[in-house]
Amino acid sequence: MRLATLRDGSKDGRLVLVSSDGLHYSPAPVGTLQEALEQWVSVAPRLLAIDTFPERLSDRDIAAPLPRAWQWLDGSAFQSHGDLMCQVLGMDPIETSVPLMYQGVSDKFYGPGDNVKFTDEALGIDFEGEFGVIVDAVPMGISADEAMNHIKLVVQINDWSLRALAGPEMKTGFGWVQAKPPCAMAPFAVTPDELGVNWRDGRVCLNLNVEWNGTHFGSANGEPMGHGFHELVAHAARTRDLVAGTVIGSGTVSNVNFREVGSSCIAERRGIEVIDMGEPKTDFMKFGDRVRMEAVDSAGRAPFGIIDQQVVRG
Amino acid sequence: MRLATLRDGSKDGRLVLVSSDGLHYSPAPVGTLQEALEQWVSVAPRLLAIDTFPERLSDRDIAAPLPRAWQWLDGSAFQSHGDLMCQVLGMDPIETSVPLMYQGVSDKFYGPGDNVKFTDEALGIDFEGEFGVIVDAVPMGISADEAMNHIKLVVQINDWSLRALAGPEMKTGFGWVQAKPPCAMAPFAVTPDELGVNWRDGRVCLNLNVEWNGTHFGSANGEPMGHGFHELVAHAARTRDLVAGTVIGSGTVSNVNFREVGSSCIAERRGIEVIDMGEPKTDFMKFGDRVRMEAVDSAGRAPFGIIDQQVVRG
Repeated sequence: MRLATLRDGSKDGRLVLVSSDGLHYSPAPVGTLQEALEQWVSVAPRLLAIDTFPERLSDRDIAAPLPRAWQWLDGSAFQSHGDLMCQVLGMDPIETSVPLMYQGVSDKFYGPGDNVKFTDEALGIDFEGEFGVIVDAVPMGISADEAMNHIKLVVQINDWSLRALAGPEMKTGFGWVQAKPPCAMAPFAVTPDELGVNWRDGRVCLNLNVEWNGTHFGSANGEPMGHGFHELVAHAARTRDLVAGTVIGSGTVSNVNFREVGSSCIAERRGIEVIDMGEPKTDFMKFGDRVRMEAVDSAGRAPFGIIDQQVVRG
Repeated sequence: MRLATLRDGSKDGRLVLVSSDGLHYSPAPVGTLQEALEQWVSVAPRLLAIDTFPERLSDRDIAAPLPRAWQWLDGSAFQSHGDLMCQVLGMDPIETSVPLMYQGVSDKFYGPGDNVKFTDEALGIDFEGEFGVIVDAVPMGISADEAMNHIKLVVQINDWSLRALAGPEMKTGFGWVQAKPPCAMAPFAVTPDELGVNWRDGRVCLNLNVEWNGTHFGSANGEPMGHGFHELVAHAARTRDLVAGTVIGSGTVSNVNFREVGSSCIAERRGIEVIDMGEPKTDFMKFGDRVRMEAVDSAGRAPFGIIDQQVVRG
């Protein structure tokens, strides 16, 4: 199943089920994705029973599948990303055997085509291409195996980041607040089965194609996560119940062969430049810049649709 | 004005206005505190106009004033607390001129008398007595002076903490997820004017009396915050709009003369023991333990009411 949320003037929008070609939709039997996740056992079969898609989907109407969430926990599950970031920040590699995770702003997720306002280019405006999952209610203390069953939907995320603020915040040990404004989501939240063989061991094994101002920037694959999403969910739920609709992110998709496949954020490219040339050469985003992100399978199909956003002066 | 939320089986409860003696209430003209905060300009005068309190308040019915929030950002604005915590963790003092802040779980705030479930005493179960504010919608980039006008309510908070997990999480730079399960709120959210002269420069200038298992533990005063709440709000809003109903916390209330006034969390007392005796002597909470927190003015009045919670095996 592919689900989308259409703007209707309300904060949570209106849930629809999308056809397999991504061009048409049918109204869902509940109003919002949040409601669906709170009653997934009863709602999912009713969604599955829908087989006609009478309405034409318009890009303009598409909000984030979950326009706001009670909880957004972002991981950093790609080791090669973490190593490069420590390099850029002049920090020692982080030594931990458990997943890295922080809680970020979740009262707003941008739609896939929304402009993103920032006040100042000097903040180091950067995109971060990620995958994420959305769970139903998860009880505290659950195992990773059990957590797998609570992964109801998979999403594609652009985690907007302000790099000039990230290093100083990280060094306090408190994590990020100012460096992490709201994220965007690609149009479609999909059930794991929709990904077929590309959903393996709690990982989205797809290339995430990233373009910056129309130029190819990266095509890292989601497979080499150090911890699968089920393990991230179990980590998050160790000391708290997770509310239905909690979104959990992978962190920037990154591969060890980053010189071949490219990157999913600018900071990582700058890290490579620091290694290769002693200093970063690529600047961060400017007002007017665009970033486009599309995860594709070997047949060229994009299960989540496309994020395509412009940075504007706020 | 003093506002409370009564349990009614829904997730957000039912908003009521409480009489000045804290014993009676009147139904509010909107259903929930979240709704009131979203329409504060129109709702506040209607609340102010209420002058009869026909219903008797029962402790059993009282939920947190805001049983769930879209955003909870907790500061660490008391320097003496931060210094002691670094001592306990064997870390250098944090060097920063801006407020310290992380985002915590907000889909659930315990009511003031709710039992709190934990799975394991070995996690280092600790309370943290704090003050907090709740804002209406705050636009990105606002100044601290402007932010003062968005502080609509003041609350008293118990920020439950798991100390065995806190140090390792902090050292990653990602802040706390597992170490910070849901907080509790005292019964009443009050408008700043309700605190009279004890609301000064964005600070709650009241002693926070803390008892652990019926024994006095601390009476630190809220005045010596290094940054006032208006500065914490402006810090939080630097790169994001704050959604109405955002809760912002002071961090553990702590005074430089902690040897005289005591502490608002166990970890701080352990820090003092490390300084004085080379190692901590006081253990963390056990299943069955209780903590009681009550901020009082010079007349012995408790504007927020009382938090009194028991730790139970979950």
